[in-house]
Amino acid sequence: MYKYLNSIQSPLDIKKMNPEELKELSGDIRRFLIEKVSKTGGHLASNLGIVEITLALHYCFNTPDDKFVWDVGHQSYVHKMITGRKEDFDCLRQYEGLSGFPKRCESDHDAFDVGHSSTSISAALGMAVARDLDKKENSVVAIIGDGALTGGMAFEALNHLGHVKSDMIVVLNDNAMSISKNVGSISNYLYKMRTHKMYSTLKGEVQGIIKSIPKIGGSVYKTAIRVRDGVKYFMLPGIFFEEMGIKYFGPVDGHDIDELIRIFESVKSIKGPVLIHAITKKGKGYTHAEKHPDKYHGVGCFDIEKGVQPSSARTYSDVAGEKLLKMASEDNRIVAVTAAMPDGTGMRKFKDELPRRFFDVGIAEGHAVTFCAGMASQGYKPFFPVYSTFLQRGFDQIIHDVAMQKLPVTFLLDRAGIVGNDGETHHGVFDLSYLGLMPNIVVMAPMDGTELEQMLEYSMTLDMPVAIRYPRGNAAASEINRSELCLGRWDVIKQGEEIAMVGIGKGVEIALEASKLLEMEGVKPAVINARFQSHMDIEFIRSIAGNYKHIFTIEDNVLSGGFGSKLKCMLSDSIPELRITNIALPDKFIEHGNTEILLQKYGLDARSVSERISGSLTGFQAGKES
Amino acid sequence: MYKYLNSIQSPLDIKKMNPEELKELSGDIRRFLIEKVSKTGGHLASNLGIVEITLALHYCFNTPDDKFVWDVGHQSYVHKMITGRKEDFDCLRQYEGLSGFPKRCESDHDAFDVGHSSTSISAALGMAVARDLDKKENSVVAIIGDGALTGGMAFEALNHLGHVKSDMIVVLNDNAMSISKNVGSISNYLYKMRTHKMYSTLKGEVQGIIKSIPKIGGSVYKTAIRVRDGVKYFMLPGIFFEEMGIKYFGPVDGHDIDELIRIFESVKSIKGPVLIHAITKKGKGYTHAEKHPDKYHGVGCFDIEKGVQPSSARTYSDVAGEKLLKMASEDNRIVAVTAAMPDGTGMRKFKDELPRRFFDVGIAEGHAVTFCAGMASQGYKPFFPVYSTFLQRGFDQIIHDVAMQKLPVTFLLDRAGIVGNDGETHHGVFDLSYLGLMPNIVVMAPMDGTELEQMLEYSMTLDMPVAIRYPRGNAAASEINRSELCLGRWDVIKQGEEIAMVGIGKGVEIALEASKLLEMEGVKPAVINARFQSHMDIEFIRSIAGNYKHIFTIEDNVLSGGFGSKLKCMLSDSIPELRITNIALPDKFIEHGNTEILLQKYGLDARSVSERISGSLTGFQAGKES
Repeated sequence: MYKYLNSIQSPLDIKKMNPEELKELSGDIRRFLIEKVSKTGGHLASNLGIVEITLALHYCFNTPDDKFVWDVGHQSYVHKMITGRKEDFDCLRQYEGLSGFPKRCESDHDAFDVGHSSTSISAALGMAVARDLDKKENSVVAIIGDGALTGGMAFEALNHLGHVKSDMIVVLNDNAMSISKNVGSISNYLYKMRTHKMYSTLKGEVQGIIKSIPKIGGSVYKTAIRVRDGVKYFMLPGIFFEEMGIKYFGPVDGHDIDELIRIFESVKSIKGPVLIHAITKKGKGYTHAEKHPDKYHGVGCFDIEKGVQPSSARTYSDVAGEKLLKMASEDNRIVAVTAAMPDGTGMRKFKDELPRRFFDVGIAEGHAVTFCAGMASQGYKPFFPVYSTFLQRGFDQIIHDVAMQKLPVTFLLDRAGIVGNDGETHHGVFDLSYLGLMPNIVVMAPMDGTELEQMLEYSMTLDMPVAIRYPRGNAAASEINRSELCLGRWDVIKQGEEIAMVGIGKGVEIALEASKLLEMEGVKPAVINARFQSHMDIEFIRSIAGNYKHIFTIEDNVLSGGFGSKLKCMLSDSIPELRITNIALPDKFIEHGNTEILLQKYGLDARSVSERISGSLTGFQAGKES
Repeated sequence: MYKYLNSIQSPLDIKKMNPEELKELSGDIRRFLIEKVSKTGGHLASNLGIVEITLALHYCFNTPDDKFVWDVGHQSYVHKMITGRKEDFDCLRQYEGLSGFPKRCESDHDAFDVGHSSTSISAALGMAVARDLDKKENSVVAIIGDGALTGGMAFEALNHLGHVKSDMIVVLNDNAMSISKNVGSISNYLYKMRTHKMYSTLKGEVQGIIKSIPKIGGSVYKTAIRVRDGVKYFMLPGIFFEEMGIKYFGPVDGHDIDELIRIFESVKSIKGPVLIHAITKKGKGYTHAEKHPDKYHGVGCFDIEKGVQPSSARTYSDVAGEKLLKMASEDNRIVAVTAAMPDGTGMRKFKDELPRRFFDVGIAEGHAVTFCAGMASQGYKPFFPVYSTFLQRGFDQIIHDVAMQKLPVTFLLDRAGIVGNDGETHHGVFDLSYLGLMPNIVVMAPMDGTELEQMLEYSMTLDMPVAIRYPRGNAAASEINRSELCLGRWDVIKQGEEIAMVGIGKGVEIALEASKLLEMEGVKPAVINARFQSHMDIEFIRSIAGNYKHIFTIEDNVLSGGFGSKLKCMLSDSIPELRITNIALPDKFIEHGNTEILLQKYGLDARSVSERISGSLTGFQAGKES
């Protein structure tokens, strides 16, 4: 099946090949990627797009001495294949298997761990500066997409890079996409360079005219020379980068190995920072992915022939998107903002049906938050659906621009809790803690899709900052009688004796399941939906909590600063005889793997919870007897 | 004393004046500013630099219908004077007095609250977009310094602005300074425009040559026209902004009222985003401030004649700077990074003596954190001294780039706790909570300057992420016997009975003072220095805590997620008979005012603490008797 791939054990094998062979190897690699990812799921389109760049990089440079820093890291599969991890792709992103992102612990060839966007130039510049201090001579290469380039810290890093002028190479992998189509003026600017030949043509034409200038007359000559220098300077494409002190090369075809090798070899010896603008096609080589690169950005398992099939499952993202669209159709103060993720957050329909009230700001969470605050200050009701872990980028802006001014912005934190195979950079396990420490923001988590809809409506009544966090995956459609939402109050959804399980968000689902297991043992715990991480109605909660001897809190957030510890703190004085046990994720980074496996590992599946309760019950009974 | 100032009650009065009168008014305003700020302290140089811009803005626009969004906001004094708050300057930045920053609750003319950098374009764009949706026609103006422009979110906002193309005006107040001299390639770029006349000269010269081109011959003519269009485009200064879809005007003299009025009037009617590049002199009109604008950025009270006198007091910043320099002189793995604050963080000497190992990245905390991580990945030991509240901008980067990879970066959080007159945007009261929720980072706070030095040394032994937070102001030089630092362990610095006060950081100082007051009442509380907010050695702590009946935790951090609540959570199960009372700041934004007043207001001065303990003691004794 593979002509060259089987013989590739390390980057050294790449260096022995000639460009023709590398081209054939590219085909091998694409077939391998499609084959493997169709079985494990993973990031496909980004990796199909970067095959030639990766091969050319390994052909020209020597990792681990030279450093490759992959931005976001979801395009590092080809690099992993080449650096000795090809055999591990059967376990890609599986528990204890190969990570979908660069990991220093996996290989010396991975220079920096990553998962979030726009960090590569900063990290690479740190490495370049360290190299300079060490008086070493290795190359440092940051590989960043045009989407990630819109993140502010990439700009901060370019600004610093152009200032310190260390030798460093930035490969701009320009496929006109973030996960969805890329937006923003920088994107337009790159597009201009890509599509219009104006720049290079102009450059040639100006040279022609300049040559003819001496004929005009001696007195103009000196001026002409100065103009020529000016023109030469300004006629180059990439002026935006040149003005920042970074030498620009390109645009170059990012699938032309000969050209890539030529340019990498030639910039190696250039002093100071260099940016190579490579044009690539996301999804290259797999028809389905070329047609719909957004759908093949991150995929589950799929049939190679048929491609990814639409799923009928209704996710929390779908619920949020549909409900918000419905609300916005009835209230024109509602606006929605995304940071380059209209699809991932379920907002595609909103974007299509209410385009004037939908804003895609690019990968720019900090700006997104303050932009929302600006709209809210003028009477609008902005909603910002965003993955929990990515909102960490807007932490200061939520405090400083939203919460401090108590502006009615609603954050919809998708992918809260354990997200599964994307792993430690993507789990949304800190949000209850980092939002819970902020004054003036109502933090909620729904137990199911129905409650998510209710919370969206409820947020409109509050006229203050709100955050609603919900998990990745299908929205449970539980048919449970529930009380109306009331600020800071619990909802007892199942009466019980002596013991209560108080869950928040997905914790309620887990509690309900655990309660069924416990009932089979004759234990009848109450199940309570806490709903709120903030603004807890202390009197109300005390009046309920006082009915029980032992409360178990359940949440898919880290322990520190989470729901359970907040509750424990609050109640330990006023009901000292009440025992409170917090069941939460440990204060550590959670690895990648199937969500069920991880929940089980950390004692957060229904069985673990029920066993823990049974166990303590024995202890508790024993304690009672003593 | 003032020729025109007394008659200014509102912006309407500005509009009635002619440019000559406005110039005289500028003089009045400068005298007023120097006079008032010399008595209250405050931001001086930034306001002296923006007098004419503010007058011209109010001459040309109509607030509150038109919106002015001041970036950082420390340059809003002139705006405040004009908008009816002149009389309040005697109480500038005092408790319950006028804020030193824009505040919507103070005036309708303040469109947006602020204190941190680089938010103005985002907020203004939100307002502009809201205006468009409302089909209104008011102007929106963001006023941003060249320093703030290096913050990544300003770039994110420009990228979005150039894309949506709303009518909006950005006034770039370019004084070549952040608080200290501005750095970065954008800064160099602006400098080039400021100082070299190349751009405008070239433009003229090219026009001349273009005119002569037809003479060359018909065949070249068409090409020439195309070149001319290209040249015209590229010859404009501000190409960096033009490439982002933002029309550039300037550079213009930011102290020339006529010119400013002319340009503001002319851009009013321009469609789409506009940037006006105004050159100003920070500190303009006060010789001392012109000479040392950095020293007159934020000042305490001073003698107008003599200027600010050097202080002999040794602050925590001084201690950190001197100690770090000493350590770095002995260990060349140590490098230091600042985000535009070499002076504020006490690092001036380090910068001067070890310039190759000192990196000023500009106002770019996010990049700074990841840049540190990059250096740490190559064996260096980066220290990042930064104000506690500004490190919030690097929240995600600390988690994602430092903590996750367990890289040995040490954060020195200066200005932790209550900072006084700068107020709610500047208090560093969330850091124990937001750092405390992160895995893999050792969070410490020293009780005095000596311990700060010890903690700096100790951080070098840990080979993992470390954060050390310390307050604004003078480092107490307490002569207290102390135990060696040991991860997660307490230091009992004063033995006592039944009651223990466990302080962290400044909390220890407060506890010591309170203990003296209590001793006068015959109560002998123990005083314990907790030192650590993370990695608490549970067994060790239990063995100490078990000796007491009631523990009072003391910290100048908010309650939620802080030291006290963490401890309470930890001990409430294992020592259920132990009472724990958390004395901390409330979960709210703390207003501006003198630090002592604020500590007292929130029950964190020694007297309040001792009274609270006495009070509970009565209750406690009563409880014992019942």
